[in-house]
Amino acid sequence: MASTNGPGALQDSALKEEIQSFFDSAPPLRNSSEISEKLKGFIKQHSACFENGRATSIVCVTSGGTTVPLEQRCVRYIDNFSSGHRGAASTEYFIKAGYAVIFLYRRGTCQPYCGSLPDDPFLECFEFTDDAHIRAREPHSEAVKRAIGDHRVAVEKGLLLKLPFTTIFEYLQMLQMIATSVGSLGPRVMFYLAAAVSDFYVPWKSMAEHKIQSGSGPLDMRLAQVPKMLAALRKEWAPSAFCISFKLETDTEILLEKADMALKMYGMHAVVANELLTRKEEVVVVTSDEKVRVNRDKADPSNDVEDPLVKLLVDKHRAHIADSS
Amino acid sequence: MASTNGPGALQDSALKEEIQSFFDSAPPLRNSSEISEKLKGFIKQHSACFENGRATSIVCVTSGGTTVPLEQRCVRYIDNFSSGHRGAASTEYFIKAGYAVIFLYRRGTCQPYCGSLPDDPFLECFEFTDDAHIRAREPHSEAVKRAIGDHRVAVEKGLLLKLPFTTIFEYLQMLQMIATSVGSLGPRVMFYLAAAVSDFYVPWKSMAEHKIQSGSGPLDMRLAQVPKMLAALRKEWAPSAFCISFKLETDTEILLEKADMALKMYGMHAVVANELLTRKEEVVVVTSDEKVRVNRDKADPSNDVEDPLVKLLVDKHRAHIADSS
Repeated sequence: MASTNGPGALQDSALKEEIQSFFDSAPPLRNSSEISEKLKGFIKQHSACFENGRATSIVCVTSGGTTVPLEQRCVRYIDNFSSGHRGAASTEYFIKAGYAVIFLYRRGTCQPYCGSLPDDPFLECFEFTDDAHIRAREPHSEAVKRAIGDHRVAVEKGLLLKLPFTTIFEYLQMLQMIATSVGSLGPRVMFYLAAAVSDFYVPWKSMAEHKIQSGSGPLDMRLAQVPKMLAALRKEWAPSAFCISFKLETDTEILLEKADMALKMYGMHAVVANELLTRKEEVVVVTSDEKVRVNRDKADPSNDVEDPLVKLLVDKHRAHIADSS
Repeated sequence: MASTNGPGALQDSALKEEIQSFFDSAPPLRNSSEISEKLKGFIKQHSACFENGRATSIVCVTSGGTTVPLEQRCVRYIDNFSSGHRGAASTEYFIKAGYAVIFLYRRGTCQPYCGSLPDDPFLECFEFTDDAHIRAREPHSEAVKRAIGDHRVAVEKGLLLKLPFTTIFEYLQMLQMIATSVGSLGPRVMFYLAAAVSDFYVPWKSMAEHKIQSGSGPLDMRLAQVPKMLAALRKEWAPSAFCISFKLETDTEILLEKADMALKMYGMHAVVANELLTRKEEVVVVTSDEKVRVNRDKADPSNDVEDPLVKLLVDKHRAHIADSS
């Protein structure tokens, strides 16, 4: 665990209390020792690794939306829309750039190397040959080879550690575990926080035990704000890491202003601002010095905006590592 | 459209208005003409089909949970937990019993013939051979053959029409389209309503256009009740069909009482009562005459409760067809 008394420690004691109370009241992570073992193995493998004379950099990519249960025996929950495409595609580019990736993803969302597959690829992409063997159906065979082959190689080489979550409670507990575990690797760790994280939640203890009944009349709900964990990540859990958060809005008017606020309030190294309707074409990387507009290269329809975005952030991360040494 | 003036017409004019206003305010179904064409083709194929001297029966199986968007440009939504396992497994048994199935399912949930696959089967079940061919990995090869082979056969023979939904608006509009389309087939149609349908929603017109901002303080939300569409399905959309609804509760104390209420209030032919924790082992089929407890046959771990459940309902449906002629 990172010390809470260091120079970077959280100054805001109200926030500290909120965070503590969030974690205290959260249902305990079911498989926490298994996750902890996997993390230990991954960090051990990469703590002494060198690529072209440089120590391997590690990035934790978060991806997909978190859920907020509305009942303890959960039937209903609030979800955040996110296909996980951004996180999955970015993971491929980070691996290509020599990073080892901890992919903290929502169960069921997009996986790295699977971007060009149809919906429901398992049922759509295969067929039986006359002699009862399986083969990939056209036009999917190239995409299938890439998905199954490249994905397997990345996992087997230990370059891709996949950790799934569903609820906001699981997500934040796992993010804290990861951040405090990689702390020893210092500035060569990046957090690329592309997950769509709930802003509001129902505290576990005030949650209905049973399914909410639909009697007569409307349902009134009061949701509490999720404490601003980015501040804790940046100041306490992994104070030397390079931290990138994302800001998604549907209203362009307030987008850059909100990104600027997040940059200052949480001490992020960069905030990637994106607008719901154009998020696959363009993002703006906001840092304390500048705002850089990053566009998809339209020369080929298969190009995506994550390619130049990850290149830019890898450069900024290298500068951060150089500055820190 | 079924006549609204027949003997079975909805008597409750307040409910009628609520239903009308729900549909009037819903965002229009994007691919409604495509769905309508598929339905027409399916009904045409089966309207004159005979199996063992009997006309083919048709069942509409609904499966998975509906979402309730909280914003028009949807970032957040309320979801209903449902893996879709019940609907997917039941579909297999209905096809085995000679039915043609309209499978109205939530995108991303369980598919028929895929029950014994691991999570994320696309990435888990295949590998490359040395000569760059794909093969199923053990221990999954039998499950893969069943999933891909049997599923394909059912779709290609026209015994399985798959229609996906996401929101409560899409689900209810599609259910209405299906019900009014199959009306001409009379009593040989069954509705097997296993989907987890939202009880509460935010009317489209009163919904925030943009993402709800997390300023300071908690978020208060008021949700309206979804009008009780089962009554409209039963009395107006498909008055001759055999209708089965499901009641899921987490509290056994109130389960049978609620199932009885649903039976009477909506005129269902049967209500399948199930409790969250034991729903894979046992259900109770509640009709006006009796309550029949249906248990999974524990002799083999691969047996499921859907097998005897579907058998029982197929028998009851045959009696309904005989009574109606």
